[in-house]
Amino acid sequence: MIIGRVIGNVVSSRKYDSLQGYKLLLIRPQYSDKSEVIVAADVMGAGVGQQVIVSFGESNQHALTKNAPIDALVVGIVDNEPIIDLSEQP
Amino acid sequence: MIIGRVIGNVVSSRKYDSLQGYKLLLIRPQYSDKSEVIVAADVMGAGVGQQVIVSFGESNQHALTKNAPIDALVVGIVDNEPIIDLSEQP
Amino acid sequence: MIIGRVIGNVVSSRKYDSLQGYKLLLIRPQYSDKSEVIVAADVMGAGVGQQVIVSFGESNQHALTKNAPIDALVVGIVDNEPIIDLSEQP
Amino acid sequence: MIIGRVIGNVVSSRKYDSLQGYKLLLIRPQYSDKSEVIVAADVMGAGVGQQVIVSFGESNQHALTKNAPIDALVVGIVDNEPIIDLSEQP
Amino acid sequence: MIIGRVIGNVVSSRKYDSLQGYKLLLIRPQYSDKSEVIVAADVMGAGVGQQVIVSFGESNQHALTKNAPIDALVVGIVDNEPIIDLSEQP
Repeated sequence: MIIGRVIGNVVSSRKYDSLQGYKLLLIRPQYSDKSEVIVAADVMGAGVGQQVIVSFGESNQHALTKNAPIDALVVGIVDNEPIIDLSEQP
Repeated sequence: MIIGRVIGNVVSSRKYDSLQGYKLLLIRPQYSDKSEVIVAADVMGAGVGQQVIVSFGESNQHALTKNAPIDALVVGIVDNEPIIDLSEQP
Repeated sequence: MIIGRVIGNVVSSRKYDSLQGYKLLLIRPQYSDKSEVIVAADVMGAGVGQQVIVSFGESNQHALTKNAPIDALVVGIVDNEPIIDLSEQP
Repeated sequence: MIIGRVIGNVVSSRKYDSLQGYKLLLIRPQYSDKSEVIVAADVMGAGVGQQVIVSFGESNQHALTKNAPIDALVVGIVDNEPIIDLSEQP
Repeated sequence: MIIGRVIGNVVSSRKYDSLQGYKLLLIRPQYSDKSEVIVAADVMGAGVGQQVIVSFGESNQHALTKNAPIDALVVGIVDNEPIIDLSEQP
C-alpha cells in the first residue's frame, strides 16, 4: 500500500456500471520520489487534503460489495501524518 | 487507475482470438513524470484526444464479457479535465 | 499492455515443465523513457525485429492452454508501427 | 519480494474492517535507487529498525487468515543484513 | 519476466511457514536502467553468479506445490547469457 494526499476527484459519466457508487478520487502518492496522480475508488468519504492509505490490485476485490474493474482503492484514512525525511539513509 | 490521453490506436491482425472485438488504444498516461505509451482495450468508444480512466491488472476481468489476456482497460471517459500542477508539493 | 520490439530470445534448458513449448523472447519496451529488456512467452511466432503487444500479469492465464508461471505474454503482432513523438505534450 | 527497513507505523482508525488486527508498518525499500515509503501489513511483530522481507499483490491472500485488501505484507524478518554494493555491475 | 543475476541469498528464520523449503535468493535485475535488488524464491538450485529468469505475481502460484505469499520466483536458469546493448535504439 502507499500513503497519498487527496487533491480532488474526477467525474466520469460514461463508465462501467460496476463503477457506479464509487467516488473516484485524485490522489498524489506521498513519501516518494515519483511524481504522479493516481485515481482510486473510495467509499470511506475521504476529503480533499486528507491523507489516505491506498491498496492496489486484485486484493481490493475482497473489500468490494461486488466485483468491479477497480485497481486502486482507499482502504483507510490516516489519523496523524507521519513525519518522514526521505533524504535520510534507511 | 490512471488518467491518460488517447493518442491513437494500434492494429494487430495476428492476435489472440479473445482480443477480437476490442479496439486497442494507444494512451499516454497524464499527470505523471513517467513518459510512456500504454495499450489499453476499449469498448466504450473513446476517441483520439479524449481523456480516459484506465484500470490495470486482473481486476479488469470483472468487466469483460469473457476472459481475455487484457491487463489494461478503459473503464471510463473523463467529463472535465482536472487541472493539476504536479510542481506543487502535495 | 505495451508495445515492444523483439530483439532475440533466451534459452533455458533448466526451467519449470509448464514453460516447455513456449519460446522466451527478449523484448525491449518501446515508446517509453524506461530502458530495459523483458522476457515474454510467445506462441504466435513473432520474429526478431517485429513489434509485438505484450500483456502482463495473471490475466495471461486466460490465454494459456494450461496454467504456467508466465507473467508476460505476446498477445499480438503489430501490423503497422505507430509513429509517436514522446516529446510532444499529451 | 523486496527487503525493506521498518521506520515506523501508521494509524488509521477509519479503515476497512478486514484490516483490523494488522499493524500497518511504514517501510523504506532497501538496495534500490527508488526513494519511497510503502505501507505493509504485519502480524510478525517486526520492530522499527528491523529489516523485513515484503511480498506484494494477490499472492499474499494465501498467508492471511481471512481475505483483506492488503497488497503488501511482511512475510519474514531478516536474520543478517546482506552487504550489497549497488554501484558494482551485476 | 526479467533476467537477473544471483548475487547471494537472505536468511529469515522468522517467516511464514509456507515459505519454508524455499531458498530466498538476492537477485539484481539485468538489462535495465533500474538499480535494485529483488528477493525471489527458488527451488531450482540457482547459484551465485548465475543468470536466472524471474517471474512475478500471482501467476507463480501455478508453479508452487502449495500456495504461498511468493511474488517473485526463479522459473529458469539461463543457458547462454544474451549480449544486449541497451544504448542501441530498439
